[in-house]
Amino acid sequence: MTAKTPEQSKTTMTDLVLPSETNPLNNLFGGELLARMDRAASIAARRHSRRIVVTASVNHVAFNRSVPLGSVVTIEAKVSRAFKTSMEVFLDVWIEDRESGERTQANEAIYTFVAVDETGRPVSIPELTPETSLEKTRFEGALRRKQLSLVLAGKMKANDATELKALFE
Amino acid sequence: MTAKTPEQSKTTMTDLVLPSETNPLNNLFGGELLARMDRAASIAARRHSRRIVVTASVNHVAFNRSVPLGSVVTIEAKVSRAFKTSMEVFLDVWIEDRESGERTQANEAIYTFVAVDETGRPVSIPELTPETSLEKTRFEGALRRKQLSLVLAGKMKANDATELKALFE
Amino acid sequence: MTAKTPEQSKTTMTDLVLPSETNPLNNLFGGELLARMDRAASIAARRHSRRIVVTASVNHVAFNRSVPLGSVVTIEAKVSRAFKTSMEVFLDVWIEDRESGERTQANEAIYTFVAVDETGRPVSIPELTPETSLEKTRFEGALRRKQLSLVLAGKMKANDATELKALFE
Amino acid sequence: MTAKTPEQSKTTMTDLVLPSETNPLNNLFGGELLARMDRAASIAARRHSRRIVVTASVNHVAFNRSVPLGSVVTIEAKVSRAFKTSMEVFLDVWIEDRESGERTQANEAIYTFVAVDETGRPVSIPELTPETSLEKTRFEGALRRKQLSLVLAGKMKANDATELKALFE
Amino acid sequence: MTAKTPEQSKTTMTDLVLPSETNPLNNLFGGELLARMDRAASIAARRHSRRIVVTASVNHVAFNRSVPLGSVVTIEAKVSRAFKTSMEVFLDVWIEDRESGERTQANEAIYTFVAVDETGRPVSIPELTPETSLEKTRFEGALRRKQLSLVLAGKMKANDATELKALFE
Amino acid sequence: MTAKTPEQSKTTMTDLVLPSETNPLNNLFGGELLARMDRAASIAARRHSRRIVVTASVNHVAFNRSVPLGSVVTIEAKVSRAFKTSMEVFLDVWIEDRESGERTQANEAIYTFVAVDETGRPVSIPELTPETSLEKTRFEGALRRKQLSLVLAGKMKANDATELKALFE
Repeated sequence: MTAKTPEQSKTTMTDLVLPSETNPLNNLFGGELLARMDRAASIAARRHSRRIVVTASVNHVAFNRSVPLGSVVTIEAKVSRAFKTSMEVFLDVWIEDRESGERTQANEAIYTFVAVDETGRPVSIPELTPETSLEKTRFEGALRRKQLSLVLAGKMKANDATELKALFE
Repeated sequence: MTAKTPEQSKTTMTDLVLPSETNPLNNLFGGELLARMDRAASIAARRHSRRIVVTASVNHVAFNRSVPLGSVVTIEAKVSRAFKTSMEVFLDVWIEDRESGERTQANEAIYTFVAVDETGRPVSIPELTPETSLEKTRFEGALRRKQLSLVLAGKMKANDATELKALFE
Repeated sequence: MTAKTPEQSKTTMTDLVLPSETNPLNNLFGGELLARMDRAASIAARRHSRRIVVTASVNHVAFNRSVPLGSVVTIEAKVSRAFKTSMEVFLDVWIEDRESGERTQANEAIYTFVAVDETGRPVSIPELTPETSLEKTRFEGALRRKQLSLVLAGKMKANDATELKALFE
Repeated sequence: MTAKTPEQSKTTMTDLVLPSETNPLNNLFGGELLARMDRAASIAARRHSRRIVVTASVNHVAFNRSVPLGSVVTIEAKVSRAFKTSMEVFLDVWIEDRESGERTQANEAIYTFVAVDETGRPVSIPELTPETSLEKTRFEGALRRKQLSLVLAGKMKANDATELKALFE
Repeated sequence: MTAKTPEQSKTTMTDLVLPSETNPLNNLFGGELLARMDRAASIAARRHSRRIVVTASVNHVAFNRSVPLGSVVTIEAKVSRAFKTSMEVFLDVWIEDRESGERTQANEAIYTFVAVDETGRPVSIPELTPETSLEKTRFEGALRRKQLSLVLAGKMKANDATELKALFE
Repeated sequence: MTAKTPEQSKTTMTDLVLPSETNPLNNLFGGELLARMDRAASIAARRHSRRIVVTASVNHVAFNRSVPLGSVVTIEAKVSRAFKTSMEVFLDVWIEDRESGERTQANEAIYTFVAVDETGRPVSIPELTPETSLEKTRFEGALRRKQLSLVLAGKMKANDATELKALFE
């Protein structure tokens, strides 16, 4: 399998915030944003792997800015690192000012997906080759995040998580 | 107001077809696609005008191919012509094969929006300058389509619809 | 197959506008109305043909009046002309004043459906015999609209669209 | 206030059963039907009273037949009796065979609504004059049902519920 | 089959009222509450019977208090009596004051479910043994309510409805 | 402010998986589960703080088992640690076998909420006193998770994250 670039899995989902998608404060309901990001991220994972993909975990979502009713919201998802059968997907969420057209980052999130065959068994996927410097930073961070997940789940000893451990030395 | 290009209003909405969005034949329900296109087109119209926009009419939607459950659907909307206060938006809908990644056009549609101020009164918008040859073709067709709407609504005499009439000579 | 009248396919869908169906201006969201009309029109097409029907195109939808939150909206759909395997359906949309009970027309729309068998192949349908003068006007217009679709899609030469061409002479 | 007939409040809501509205057995989900009936009944109550109306109770809903995915479902709601500020609304639910066009009754239901002013206080409404024999039967039953509700809620003594008591003598 | 207690079927559904679930007065839409109660009641019926269950009727729902946007709503459902193949489920609906945490009862409702096998045929279910005094009161009332349903449906003579008749003597 | 126990914020949301909430593999759609958990967690945070709460981040969600169509799903949310103005909420998700009634854990998740006043400014909240040993383990882990978030966001030096660092020594 030929390695792919993050650009090849890039997925753009631009949409409105309508009243049925808000919370009582008239901002985009957090659960609705989590659901939209899951849809966008799964498309990116599918584009990288050309396989059926299932959500394995949501690793981190930071809600930095609320997204008001009527906003235009753009979610951009790209695979940030491919492991043997799983992929980390990085999402950036932007809102756009109607009058100036200026875009501001509202949120970012990290989801992990596993590629499976028709029977649900994990299958191998192509490697990912990061290109831009942001892609490279995220690619490197992905390994630490994977180690962290394994350590927190009790499936790896903290001392074996070499890259993660280096953060604290 | 400076003229804008179609590229400046380009809006991409990539999304899945989940079971809650299908008809009894397990294809994307027509009404759901019409609603998604309305959302995408209104964003394109807003990006061109930087104004509040309201749907004025749906001029033509051709459902050439059904879109099966589980598909990745990409809607691309671009303003195709700006009149004094209204804009025609052209939409192309693509579905993507999971294994090959190949994209096939499933539908196309034309919506018209009006830009309004806070009180709902129509306001002037920038002109549109088409760049590619497809954009130019659609730009020219837009005038005939507008004349056709006016003729069918009884607001213009068929003989005054110069560009439209030329089709039949 | 015995010919049918428009009355035999008449479909009435009366419903409310709830908050989950509005746009940020507190009016019925255009996409929601397009979806409701698709449902009503498909029932009318099914009543005429007694067949499975699929949306072929949306030919024209004019949004003349916005429909405020809390309105009672009535959609009336009737087949306006039957061709060999396809039907044009005309929709009238009314809103009703709560205090006076007076009805005002808010929108009208034209959808086209094709009747298919279980394998998706087009099948013959009964003819339509219009009765009222409005039904007759719409019946005649349907042929011009069909020719127009074919001309715009490049499947008929403008000069062969006899009824349509007559408009411009 | 002039008395009105049940026909004057008659409300017809014809709609499809799509996959998003089914239960795991592929029939219309009971909760979805209850919600649709609430919408239809509230429109009938509003048409009778020309007032804001709020659901006071659901008195009886019998689910006699399941409604399969893809059905055409028609809900017909009519006010069956008007009291001082409240109305009983009777609903009949029909499903329609696609091939023969034959209609079968699937359910019936009784809802009660109260008419209120802008501050939520109950207001007087017109009387109802039943016309057909079915309307008369339902009109008479409504009084017994109202007494029954009051007795069950402990707001009326069983012995004072004259019409209801007569059933058992 | 061993008898079960109401506690064994107790089902708690705590949820918010978001804007997409309100009526134009900004209270929880009646139809949405009916749907949520149907979901909760069907889980209680399933927990009692360990069978597939289908809604047979909604016997009584009293909307005593409106439930404002942003409320926390708790639905508690418990089987109140088991007959041969059917169960009555009693629901209590509470809203909770955000500041004091105090709970107020907003509604109560009674639904009936039938347990069926894979082919849809009714099957026997365990008996129910009420424990608390409220459970005993509801257990006794359930028989009268069942008789009432049968009498109203013309399937039992009023004079044979011994427990119900006793109310009027 | 008096300290509270996790039990005092415990929130139970039991619900079905209906067809409209599934993915193309007929399992509960990941985004729908994320949204339900957000609703349950926000209620727990509100019960602890008696304040308006907003989602600050989703720290970890592990999708260990898919949840099939027709399942009964129970989400239990409890505040696991209170900081000055923010709370960590721990969620356990269970599915229940219809025939045996046995419950299996399908997922777990950690969300963080901030308590705010009407103007959106963070406000102080009561402390949390864990009681059971599981509650104590989660309470202790919460501090490490908070440090981790701050380190990953570049708002704390790894060397200052004392409790977190201890994991690697």
